[in-house]
Amino acid sequence: MAGYISDAVIRRLPSYYRHLRELEQEGILQISSQELGERMGLTPSQIRQDINTFGGVGRQGFGYQVQALREHIRSTMGLDREHRMVIIGAGRMGQAIANYSHFARDGFITVALFDIDPERIRKGTPELPVYPAEEMEERLPGLQADIGVLVLPADAAQETLELLYRMGIRAVWNFAPVDLHYPRDMAVVNMHLSDTLHILSYQMKHMES
Amino acid sequence: MAGYISDAVIRRLPSYYRHLRELEQEGILQISSQELGERMGLTPSQIRQDINTFGGVGRQGFGYQVQALREHIRSTMGLDREHRMVIIGAGRMGQAIANYSHFARDGFITVALFDIDPERIRKGTPELPVYPAEEMEERLPGLQADIGVLVLPADAAQETLELLYRMGIRAVWNFAPVDLHYPRDMAVVNMHLSDTLHILSYQMKHMES
Repeated sequence: MAGYISDAVIRRLPSYYRHLRELEQEGILQISSQELGERMGLTPSQIRQDINTFGGVGRQGFGYQVQALREHIRSTMGLDREHRMVIIGAGRMGQAIANYSHFARDGFITVALFDIDPERIRKGTPELPVYPAEEMEERLPGLQADIGVLVLPADAAQETLELLYRMGIRAVWNFAPVDLHYPRDMAVVNMHLSDTLHILSYQMKHMES
Repeated sequence: MAGYISDAVIRRLPSYYRHLRELEQEGILQISSQELGERMGLTPSQIRQDINTFGGVGRQGFGYQVQALREHIRSTMGLDREHRMVIIGAGRMGQAIANYSHFARDGFITVALFDIDPERIRKGTPELPVYPAEEMEERLPGLQADIGVLVLPADAAQETLELLYRMGIRAVWNFAPVDLHYPRDMAVVNMHLSDTLHILSYQMKHMES
């Protein structure tokens, strides 16, 4: 394990992973910090600094070994193991997340959805069951999920997070447009869709002025 | 208009907007930097500094006027006008975005989707038509869209962005897992879902170690 990694570097890790995967698909075996920087929009010295921070992979001769570096970052991000997700909220967005093929490719498997709406519950399938939300406490132990995905209204998000915590789930991916409170031994990443759309709107307005 | 606003402050604008809207719904008329900071997880001095940067709204007596500040931020982000979106890619995720009620509430209206899949095209409705992708150049002028939302495979994203640009669209909300190249007079905001999931995975692993 590398030592302390700053938030900024952590935020860039998925981008490194994506670009290295692209390079591998293109059959490129090694790459210089110069070339990788050009692809990623970073300076060569930034690239060298980041990769030193990740640790574990040295620069050899003319560049980095693409596969070794990708494998190292994969392991650093914990993508070398399977993650089991339950999605709370089986509306269009919840179902879209459950069926998004990219997640499964990276080992994030949706094992079940929960909802309060009888119509949505009826639409569950054996592969992707939609259980009544009131059965969460009963169902969760058997599902062995480690990630809860919140795709429900803002006013139901906090209490659902607390229920997930009581049931032993320590990671939440939150799509509800609200900032949640959570204990220190829980990981929460927000996916506030409207926020990013508002930033786009800001940039549009800024360009025009 | 305020002057130069840093990226960090821009990224916080939507959060200010969300919290001020919550306060308004709770019937709170004014709020101190102390109280607002507690809600947002920022220090009071950070709050005062940010709000000074937005400009336009002074601190009066015991705090900020909630409604005036929210209105000012709304206008700063260009949310005081309607935006018309076309979504390229009418799979589950594209349809979920088209139907997400929060966007419409903030004035982001989806006017049409495009896809290459006949089945998805057939599923279009008069309110939310799904047109063949090959009709984009013909249809776009009449749709008067100002935002293109890319919800398609990575390898089709760059050429679609370029087509949108040629057709006069200057803003792209990109869900494809790829970094796009675009001219300076275009605004692009990425919504890399897998990246945020990978960061959650990193945090989970980091907690365990």
